[in-house]
Amino acid sequence: MFKLPPEARNPILVSSADGVGTKIKVAIESGRNDTVGHDLVNHCCNDILVQGALPLFFLDYVAFGKLDPAVVEAVVAGVAAGCRENGCALVGGETAEMPGLYTPPDYDLAGFIVGYVEEDAVLGADRVRDGDVLVGLESNGLHTNGYSLARRIVAERLRLGPHDRFPGETGTVAEVLLRVHRSYVPALKPVLRHIHAMAHITGGGLPGNLDRALPPTLDAVVDVGSWTVPGLFRVLQDAGAVETPEMFRAFNMGVGMVVIAAPADVAAVIDSAAGAGVRAWTLGRVAPGAGRVILT
Amino acid sequence: MFKLPPEARNPILVSSADGVGTKIKVAIESGRNDTVGHDLVNHCCNDILVQGALPLFFLDYVAFGKLDPAVVEAVVAGVAAGCRENGCALVGGETAEMPGLYTPPDYDLAGFIVGYVEEDAVLGADRVRDGDVLVGLESNGLHTNGYSLARRIVAERLRLGPHDRFPGETGTVAEVLLRVHRSYVPALKPVLRHIHAMAHITGGGLPGNLDRALPPTLDAVVDVGSWTVPGLFRVLQDAGAVETPEMFRAFNMGVGMVVIAAPADVAAVIDSAAGAGVRAWTLGRVAPGAGRVILT
Repeated sequence: MFKLPPEARNPILVSSADGVGTKIKVAIESGRNDTVGHDLVNHCCNDILVQGALPLFFLDYVAFGKLDPAVVEAVVAGVAAGCRENGCALVGGETAEMPGLYTPPDYDLAGFIVGYVEEDAVLGADRVRDGDVLVGLESNGLHTNGYSLARRIVAERLRLGPHDRFPGETGTVAEVLLRVHRSYVPALKPVLRHIHAMAHITGGGLPGNLDRALPPTLDAVVDVGSWTVPGLFRVLQDAGAVETPEMFRAFNMGVGMVVIAAPADVAAVIDSAAGAGVRAWTLGRVAPGAGRVILT
Repeated sequence: MFKLPPEARNPILVSSADGVGTKIKVAIESGRNDTVGHDLVNHCCNDILVQGALPLFFLDYVAFGKLDPAVVEAVVAGVAAGCRENGCALVGGETAEMPGLYTPPDYDLAGFIVGYVEEDAVLGADRVRDGDVLVGLESNGLHTNGYSLARRIVAERLRLGPHDRFPGETGTVAEVLLRVHRSYVPALKPVLRHIHAMAHITGGGLPGNLDRALPPTLDAVVDVGSWTVPGLFRVLQDAGAVETPEMFRAFNMGVGMVVIAAPADVAAVIDSAAGAGVRAWTLGRVAPGAGRVILT
């Protein structure tokens, strides 16, 4: 049971359900199960943040073939860490044991979030104007997308196990691939009133997510020279011989969140992100068009 | 995004996350995937109904090894049917494809519900009084619990496949085991103000669920002669040579929901259930004690 905060005047509940995809296989194979729960909460928080909503409460679903108490504890510790980071309550969940459906040590994890936004503060494409600026916020790794492709490249092309060093990085394969999906709540919570729309860059990449933040009469023109794609993605691209457009569809390529704001508000957004330790920069512009995402 | 109904004055949000356990294996093995979603919604609605809450919205998570569009469609059709029955909105969900985690045709399904109750109408153990009456509401089958045991008995002791006739029943094994978990929302919504507390009889059976509806100074005395245990459970008990106490822990034994109400309100509860086509009867009494469930 959860009571809405007393300051809520005209609240719209915003909810989302998600999993962590095959990132969970990296956790299982490396035996490091204490981060995927944190990924999941951060992912869900980012998904409702794009509507302008801040998280209230979270529930999880963890399913095993044979329940392993140490793994449950690690998974839930990760969920709890994510809830703390984002200021939301962990109000419940379900732990299921389903012999025959999951082969030990496999398990799956799903999460559900509820947050709220005041009705007059809902963000979205209808607020976006010609001349608005795209602000990119850096990701800190693959986040929670592209793992089926990344795992295949690492195992079959690079022929690396979870405890081998990842080329060009200081950490192991498991450490690099399990970096916790960044939450943009701390970076953007102080400036939500300065923002028109946002896109959380998940499966589909920039072209498959930024389009939903656009009205049908405007394009987002992304300057791909405005940032340096992190080495991690270049290693995967080279080893997997992946075409660049496919890379931009499968991965975030270093951009975890895109904010659309009026030119006068850009400095406030970049400063707020910096205050939370997140690099942000002018990624491009909104221009007359047809709801397309154009990478130039 | 979901806006609270305008009549909500002092709402408490009540939420729950659940799966359908290994009932999903019966659906997968028999190729009948259009009912488990309905089970899941009804189960979740019953779980928040015990606090006095009515459902607002639902989200699902469906995960496959290899996505099968026909199965997704069947599963979501079941979820939608459940949402219609209970008057709640299906606002979203996630469909995940996770090769290597699920072996086709296996899949898993989890659900998440949010409802609300007025703060002064929250039901629970603190409302229960000495002399209150236990009203049982009939189940229509196994609902969503005890499937690991039931499937083992059916396959290993009765040696029946999903399309064989279930002994003593008119339907096949699949039809009997997949009967949709009953929702008690239609039966009890009109009389929530006449109810002190409720117990949804799921895993743990009567002893493992009714105890949570009791204050520490009162017992629930259940008269096990007040109803006839359905033949389905007797067949499972005989074939599996299961002791009676274990039967009452693993299965609902014909009682899907227990309502605790003052004696003067019992007739209203039984009439309301009858109006929704659900048989209800006086199952027992609340008496001075220590928070125990006593089967006599």
